[in-house]
Amino acid sequence: MRTVLVIGIGAGDPEHLTLQAVGALQRADVVFVIDKGDAKDDLLALRTEILDRHRSDGGYRLVTAPEVDRDRGPEVAGDDAAYRDVVVDWQDRRAQLYRDMLAGELADGGTGAFLVWGDPSLYDGTLRLLERVLDGAPGEWRLESVAGISSVAALAAAHRLILNRVGRPVLITTGRRIAEGMPDGVDDVVVMLDGRTAFTALPPEQRAELHVYWGAYLGTPDELLVAGPLDEVADDILRVRAEARGRKGWIMDTYLLRRGAEER
Amino acid sequence: MRTVLVIGIGAGDPEHLTLQAVGALQRADVVFVIDKGDAKDDLLALRTEILDRHRSDGGYRLVTAPEVDRDRGPEVAGDDAAYRDVVVDWQDRRAQLYRDMLAGELADGGTGAFLVWGDPSLYDGTLRLLERVLDGAPGEWRLESVAGISSVAALAAAHRLILNRVGRPVLITTGRRIAEGMPDGVDDVVVMLDGRTAFTALPPEQRAELHVYWGAYLGTPDELLVAGPLDEVADDILRVRAEARGRKGWIMDTYLLRRGAEER
Repeated sequence: MRTVLVIGIGAGDPEHLTLQAVGALQRADVVFVIDKGDAKDDLLALRTEILDRHRSDGGYRLVTAPEVDRDRGPEVAGDDAAYRDVVVDWQDRRAQLYRDMLAGELADGGTGAFLVWGDPSLYDGTLRLLERVLDGAPGEWRLESVAGISSVAALAAAHRLILNRVGRPVLITTGRRIAEGMPDGVDDVVVMLDGRTAFTALPPEQRAELHVYWGAYLGTPDELLVAGPLDEVADDILRVRAEARGRKGWIMDTYLLRRGAEER
Repeated sequence: MRTVLVIGIGAGDPEHLTLQAVGALQRADVVFVIDKGDAKDDLLALRTEILDRHRSDGGYRLVTAPEVDRDRGPEVAGDDAAYRDVVVDWQDRRAQLYRDMLAGELADGGTGAFLVWGDPSLYDGTLRLLERVLDGAPGEWRLESVAGISSVAALAAAHRLILNRVGRPVLITTGRRIAEGMPDGVDDVVVMLDGRTAFTALPPEQRAELHVYWGAYLGTPDELLVAGPLDEVADDILRVRAEARGRKGWIMDTYLLRRGAEER
């Protein structure tokens, strides 16, 4: 029997780690890392800091594999069906990578860990991939998920927000979806995976009734926050975002769109 | 200047605490606790365990106030407008309680902490109350929110779930809302605050296409999990839930309803 841990390490602050995550890290014989390339050096540094701090014993092996390439065309073009196909194909090839890594690197009786940003349950494919890989050999693997602070929770904390209004729902969605317009029946929408500042695509009458609470590099020393009526601060967000992205070479941001922000 | 910390302590497992939350706890001169009565002795015990473990120095004062009463009639009757009025009135009276506690117990230059279950940003009113109280004396107070593991994240981890499907949204809503039926345009719905097992109220044609992933007392030694096609496991959930509630005197549960669970 082998154990695979998927550990949420939080949105960017090494202090986001839970005591449970620290304990899980300390159980790992092998830590698997997918190297996403130079652009996200900061993220690699944070992961290294976490390992150095909580595994100063050095009693683990670090196994690194390069990220599998992915066609960004349909995503940029906003082609929904093609985007989904690309993601599914990409996940097939990632599954093969994970299968090879686990078979080659994790001995019987051993425990491996994948560290994922935020929480493993939101817009991260690691659990899905591992379920597929491990389903191929039932009884030989145990999979555990360790909850982490998501960028949604980090955004809310940074702005001191409650995401829901009294008795009302919250939608968590993607930039590609929100570009189609604010959904009916929900007035609080958290937008993730938005590489193209989709709020600019909303029709003027929707924009006029929205507040935005935006954050980038949440929990890190580079954290950026902008909040206000969308029409008033949209240009600030675009400017701050473009400047930071140019300077750092990458950006991770998320935001809440809130209709009727004066209501509780 | 006084500082008030709202600290998310996770869904029930003392190991859910983040390193940031531990640090925040250790800064507190005064810890404020709202006593919700005997029924939730387990919760009180967990809070005490967290304080004993992380504040063994004893260098803080514990200030306890009884919970403000609330009319449960409209909630039980499912009267939406009346329910909202009750909550708003209840929050007015709680705001006065918090105002009195802070004025009476927190000295200038001091730091007070409120410990809240889960994450302060989801279905918890503490931040909203404190914003109201502290807005009355601007410049004299600093409010901070410390993110925690929500019961949503704990539910997902327990079932090893990713809440969203590829590129698709997730709705977090209440039992009262889901009793009106599964919303359009979203196939993954997390239900919180459901005291009346609202999934039983869904029309048969909706129930037939849903999987449910249910959890109670998440993260505690009493954790209960049931998952499967809703039509097949709904009775199990009702039976397990009633038995546990009878035995313990209280229950906190949450669940994911998923349409088309075979799709990724």
